[in-house]
Amino acid sequence: MRATVMYRAGNVRVENVPDATVVNPTDALVRITRACICGSDLWPYKELEPTDTGRRMGHEAVGVVEDVGADVRKVKKGDFVVMPFAYSDGTCAFCHEGLQTSCVHGGFFGIGGEAGGAQSEAVRVPLADGTLFVLPVREDDALTRSLLTLSDVMGTGHHAAVAAKVGRGKKVAVIGDGAVGLCGVIAAKRLGAEQIIILGRYPDRIALAKAFGATDVVSERGEEAIERVRQLTGGFGVHSVLECVGTHQAMHTAIGIARAGGAVGRVGVPHYEAMPASEPAFYRNITVSGGPAPVRAYIEELLPDVLEGSIEPGRVLDRTVGLDGVPDGYRAMNDREAIKVMIKLRA
Amino acid sequence: MRATVMYRAGNVRVENVPDATVVNPTDALVRITRACICGSDLWPYKELEPTDTGRRMGHEAVGVVEDVGADVRKVKKGDFVVMPFAYSDGTCAFCHEGLQTSCVHGGFFGIGGEAGGAQSEAVRVPLADGTLFVLPVREDDALTRSLLTLSDVMGTGHHAAVAAKVGRGKKVAVIGDGAVGLCGVIAAKRLGAEQIIILGRYPDRIALAKAFGATDVVSERGEEAIERVRQLTGGFGVHSVLECVGTHQAMHTAIGIARAGGAVGRVGVPHYEAMPASEPAFYRNITVSGGPAPVRAYIEELLPDVLEGSIEPGRVLDRTVGLDGVPDGYRAMNDREAIKVMIKLRA
Repeated sequence: MRATVMYRAGNVRVENVPDATVVNPTDALVRITRACICGSDLWPYKELEPTDTGRRMGHEAVGVVEDVGADVRKVKKGDFVVMPFAYSDGTCAFCHEGLQTSCVHGGFFGIGGEAGGAQSEAVRVPLADGTLFVLPVREDDALTRSLLTLSDVMGTGHHAAVAAKVGRGKKVAVIGDGAVGLCGVIAAKRLGAEQIIILGRYPDRIALAKAFGATDVVSERGEEAIERVRQLTGGFGVHSVLECVGTHQAMHTAIGIARAGGAVGRVGVPHYEAMPASEPAFYRNITVSGGPAPVRAYIEELLPDVLEGSIEPGRVLDRTVGLDGVPDGYRAMNDREAIKVMIKLRA
Repeated sequence: MRATVMYRAGNVRVENVPDATVVNPTDALVRITRACICGSDLWPYKELEPTDTGRRMGHEAVGVVEDVGADVRKVKKGDFVVMPFAYSDGTCAFCHEGLQTSCVHGGFFGIGGEAGGAQSEAVRVPLADGTLFVLPVREDDALTRSLLTLSDVMGTGHHAAVAAKVGRGKKVAVIGDGAVGLCGVIAAKRLGAEQIIILGRYPDRIALAKAFGATDVVSERGEEAIERVRQLTGGFGVHSVLECVGTHQAMHTAIGIARAGGAVGRVGVPHYEAMPASEPAFYRNITVSGGPAPVRAYIEELLPDVLEGSIEPGRVLDRTVGLDGVPDGYRAMNDREAIKVMIKLRA
């Protein structure tokens, strides 16, 4: 089969690899119909050390179950499924608590591990019963984009909002106008936020943020951004900050714009070893929470809104490529030409 | 009047100073009957740069109102009151939310500011109506010790527990066997924790922690402590960590022993600029919360338990001195001879 493999920073290829198959009795084989390139894929695209074996890429997909192992009970051949970016057994203590990204038997797709990657024709899904979510609809182009975001970005934006304690009437800021930040705007609006300030500077993304419910835009950075958000919030800052970038500066800004007693929900993979602004966070009783989103836990909550069209997270997928177009898709996202790239495989 | 003044690290004196008086119409003048030396007073005792004017010390006290300004309504002469370590107006948005330590007109006692210090015969209390809590009992030696802890350490231990999301059936660890850590044990027990692991190594303090409800003791430090706590908790760590020290190592340990999805409530004044272990905290979805405790908000909740004797936080006050004994009290706490020193002024 054909699959996306990264060999070093900037070097992404689509190659022939051995066909994915069911290996363990709890596996499913999923034929991918739609996948994505993720903002987090751009980190290795910028930084990956050369590797001879290559890293199989991709962790977001919807597809059709083609085969299942002998012990798989809840998923069957022909099911149309969402594949969350992490696999999980669905039975351990953490899965029961809704933190599937800490499943004791779990792991992640597209990071070079045994599970392979989703930017390919097919993928082996370990622990299929706990991992896959069977969709109650057939493949449908109108909805597929939004369903696809349930595998990562929409669930991740929602996780940021939950971690930041967004609720009715709250003032919220979203740091980052990438796909996750934009989904964070959707999530904040959905959870009843009164004011949603987007921090970003790309006109196409800002336009989408406004369409999703952002009420204010802050294009400044650093101390100027902090000052501007305070001006917009009566001097005190926001109750909830969704940190969707992951840099030292973004986290510093997040703590600077949080209101005393407020919360920062961080979902941008942190590229800082120690968290900045620890003392200001302490003196103002700011909560910092978040991490890899247990998107598996959120699909059930978010799916009805996707099905009835009251949220349209699929709009963040503003470019479509075929599998052979994946390398150019990475380039386009890295150059900020596209917000997020969808990969359309033959249905 | 006589008051405690610190001039540099290690140099604490009790001196004659001008009498405290009502200055603003919202002030009260409180004659102190009992005060304390706080673990946080040991930081300047170790580090204070020389100052000619000196710093008036002390932020924990109970006493009797001797005079009130013209605009004071809720507090009257003769009232027996607890003075929280921060003063607050009781009317701003933060006070209404129960975060009096972020009051927009508030401030702190005993840090060299205009409000003076509590390790003295009397103290001017700004914003008396919002700050002072009138006790429904008369001075009573049996209860006074525990009532006195409501001005800081018991409320602070409770805040750590709340920030760490302690609840019924939870596994909890308390880092630090000082007075705040010990009150954290009381708070964790009171909120229904199933297992309470105290991390500390002083036999007298450990004994008290056990009396307060600690179920396990970990005397190791660093990586060994993390390993030991994991052993005691089925390999996963605790749901809630009360970080009552404030050092880089303590925070590193806190994140290391927290269970995935767990929470760290930090109340030890942080002596680290950037928070360590930010990446492990992220990957395991650990929440970090806490800060200066809004003890004023907690008195109402904790007072009934103190009055009926179901909690006895006053037991952390294991040494009593008169005002002239304050310098030796600092020495004794710094040398770990005493857990916490009570200052008894003439009643």
